[in-house]
Amino acid sequence: MLRPLINPLSCLHKNRPRFSFALHVHIKTRALSTKMTPPNSWLPIPQDSDFSLANIPFGIIISKNSQNVKRPAIPIGDHVLDLKAFTEGNGFSALASFPSGQFSVFSQSTLNAFAALGQETHNLVREYIQEVFSETTSHPEILRDNPALQKEALLPKHETKPQMPMQIGDYTDFYAGYNHAFNAGALFRGPANALQPNYLHIPVGYHGRASSIVVSGTSIIRPSGQILLDPTATPKAPIFSPCRRLDFELELGCFLCTSNSMGTSLPINSSAEKAVFGYVLLNDWSARDIQAWEYVPLGPFNGKNFGSTISPWIILPSALEPFRASKLENTTELLPYLQESREDTVYDISLSVDLTTPEQDTTTISTVSSSNLIWSFPQMIAHHSAGGCPMNVGDFLGSGTISGKSDKELGSLLEMTEGGKKEIMLAGMDVRKFLKDGDTITLRGKCGEGVGFGECTGKIFGAVQS
Amino acid sequence: MLRPLINPLSCLHKNRPRFSFALHVHIKTRALSTKMTPPNSWLPIPQDSDFSLANIPFGIIISKNSQNVKRPAIPIGDHVLDLKAFTEGNGFSALASFPSGQFSVFSQSTLNAFAALGQETHNLVREYIQEVFSETTSHPEILRDNPALQKEALLPKHETKPQMPMQIGDYTDFYAGYNHAFNAGALFRGPANALQPNYLHIPVGYHGRASSIVVSGTSIIRPSGQILLDPTATPKAPIFSPCRRLDFELELGCFLCTSNSMGTSLPINSSAEKAVFGYVLLNDWSARDIQAWEYVPLGPFNGKNFGSTISPWIILPSALEPFRASKLENTTELLPYLQESREDTVYDISLSVDLTTPEQDTTTISTVSSSNLIWSFPQMIAHHSAGGCPMNVGDFLGSGTISGKSDKELGSLLEMTEGGKKEIMLAGMDVRKFLKDGDTITLRGKCGEGVGFGECTGKIFGAVQS
Repeated sequence: MLRPLINPLSCLHKNRPRFSFALHVHIKTRALSTKMTPPNSWLPIPQDSDFSLANIPFGIIISKNSQNVKRPAIPIGDHVLDLKAFTEGNGFSALASFPSGQFSVFSQSTLNAFAALGQETHNLVREYIQEVFSETTSHPEILRDNPALQKEALLPKHETKPQMPMQIGDYTDFYAGYNHAFNAGALFRGPANALQPNYLHIPVGYHGRASSIVVSGTSIIRPSGQILLDPTATPKAPIFSPCRRLDFELELGCFLCTSNSMGTSLPINSSAEKAVFGYVLLNDWSARDIQAWEYVPLGPFNGKNFGSTISPWIILPSALEPFRASKLENTTELLPYLQESREDTVYDISLSVDLTTPEQDTTTISTVSSSNLIWSFPQMIAHHSAGGCPMNVGDFLGSGTISGKSDKELGSLLEMTEGGKKEIMLAGMDVRKFLKDGDTITLRGKCGEGVGFGECTGKIFGAVQS
Repeated sequence: MLRPLINPLSCLHKNRPRFSFALHVHIKTRALSTKMTPPNSWLPIPQDSDFSLANIPFGIIISKNSQNVKRPAIPIGDHVLDLKAFTEGNGFSALASFPSGQFSVFSQSTLNAFAALGQETHNLVREYIQEVFSETTSHPEILRDNPALQKEALLPKHETKPQMPMQIGDYTDFYAGYNHAFNAGALFRGPANALQPNYLHIPVGYHGRASSIVVSGTSIIRPSGQILLDPTATPKAPIFSPCRRLDFELELGCFLCTSNSMGTSLPINSSAEKAVFGYVLLNDWSARDIQAWEYVPLGPFNGKNFGSTISPWIILPSALEPFRASKLENTTELLPYLQESREDTVYDISLSVDLTTPEQDTTTISTVSSSNLIWSFPQMIAHHSAGGCPMNVGDFLGSGTISGKSDKELGSLLEMTEGGKKEIMLAGMDVRKFLKDGDTITLRGKCGEGVGFGECTGKIFGAVQS
């Protein structure tokens, strides 16, 4: 399974996006239901945009228009709708079912208050925005025929800058990518003992560092820490050094929109799915050498807490509904608190990883479906809260690294290089075992039909001298 | 080392505090310096109080006086000074060196804003309050001779209720109690392999669950979770059950008062010690059976995140300065980033653990000095931030369980009962291996000279039926 993955001629190119599948957006009818084809828009939306009317995700931006004050926003094609400006310009005046007092959520600097209103309200707003932007909108006066409000609220995307969308309370990273767990375990313990005995019974996870989650585009500084140059030597002689085995991890992230009090839980088939606000891409940067020396017995720590990057736009479950897929098969009989009433509780999102060298050569080093999970987010939420742990609006969960079965579908360099034993080939005839200063990793996620995640990107900067 | 610890006749009594050492508070001079003997007060302070003028810790209270709105406060003897009322009544009018705009920190519902002002300001306020309450105060008009302000701001303690003192950003639990790490390791792997190879090189820690930290007095509901009734059986057959091996852990907790940006660190001898706002007691309740099944390979999770209790009053480092003590000896040569310029970087606080049964019989099951740490908090902070992890005001660190070398100085039932193999004797001729519903655990910490932590107490309630 762990062979070098790259055919050096197959996926090299410079500086351009590379989704090879064509997007055929044939939208003919106006529709508000999440399962129906979304309407065409009077606003020109590029055919390959991640942000068609079928999407309508939420984020936070700054722009000159708002003197760089953070505001909730929705990306639509090559534009971004500033929700504070839209609200103040009576943009929601035709949304009678939304209590007017609640519009203050669009004046906040995070989406937490909006998230806390619950899925029903998120969908109401999403469908209303779809209606307002539809070419057959019943309310052209709101925005289509209102150039003043367009000027205030509908900003060219390149004039805005995405910010952290949520104030994260607690962050938990799971390990639900079966193929990654197997690959990583096999590297350390051999294939026969790759998975721990609990792996197929428990959505294994660990508490992460909330303060280290940053939005796409934030610089990642190579961490320094204790590493063992020779892990087999006795006695152990760690040195303090810049990380020499810096890696990325391709994950899906999930923000929560409900809370439970301490001592109560979010049961699998009643509350866990409703607790999901939405999804982002997550790059859980990993210092493999620091992690290897520190992680027994209490888990990853400084090997992970120097930075984790998320994509800025939170995709609602309703936008992903058409892309439901079945989890990887788990033949273990699950305890009732983890049994779901349906199997298609993950999504088929086409994830990809680009590595761009300091010389600006870009190689797609992995493409894999996000359905390669053996546990769904509702299962993770049900397990997390099963003992009474209080979950809160704004909490963030990571799926764990997502890898497929083939050598072109691996979610980390650890797996691609078999722990640094082999090199991968890159554009420009460059090679890597791990990341070098100046490298940029860009994650993308695309479902087709105009629904995608945008970019989750981070560039590595040299370690700070201490 | 792990024999049953209790002489059933030696430490049994009902319903009363049990610090056997006498407190000799002979305070003769008015003094503001942290190292000098604190002044006597015009306010009667019981001789055995944890909260003499030598202490002056900070917390958050509610009271009828403030319509149950949370307010910063200082406990003094059997009273509590409401800092918002004190500020509004011009209580700080003789503190010229405190910028007047900063007094808004005493109108907040947490101490985060006050903490962020830094140690110098904390000490300035502490020393000012010592002066105002001194029997030889230069400013009797402020409070001593001001019955109106006394009525507003100086509340009988029993009319107030302590609240969570800080908004915690991230919580990290370390493992710096060498004796506990050894005892726990020996139980699982034998004495020869008790400590992992990294233990003497790294202040090992893991990210905990910030949302599960609660203040003393909060009910603790027994968690349910996956447990293995027979850990040796193959295949593994976990059941979902209320925890059957519920334990406490005696720890010291530390709140931070400075922040560092991602990619920078808090160096050991310049910044790490200044990053400490103050200390509390911490009971890190532990579900040993849930923890045992879940924790490999990513560390403790649901075995810990159902609740952790802290004492409400944050004791400043300046109050603990006279009680500095040396860490446990570590003969390993530390990497420079962990080398401290002095050895006495922990404190000699006399910690104790009371177990009160549902029948209200109380037994002191442990007394141990908090100096039983092999890593200091400054070392933990330096290590935590060494790779660039962003630390923030309000972050909370746990020391790890503190045990001494003798069987009367153990910080968990796991150690006292050798993992449940033996029973401990309690008052009323009751016995325990682990905690039963209705049991109450009370931690105390006392330094002598009128400086102590008050109580950190939690009662176990039966698991919620799911």
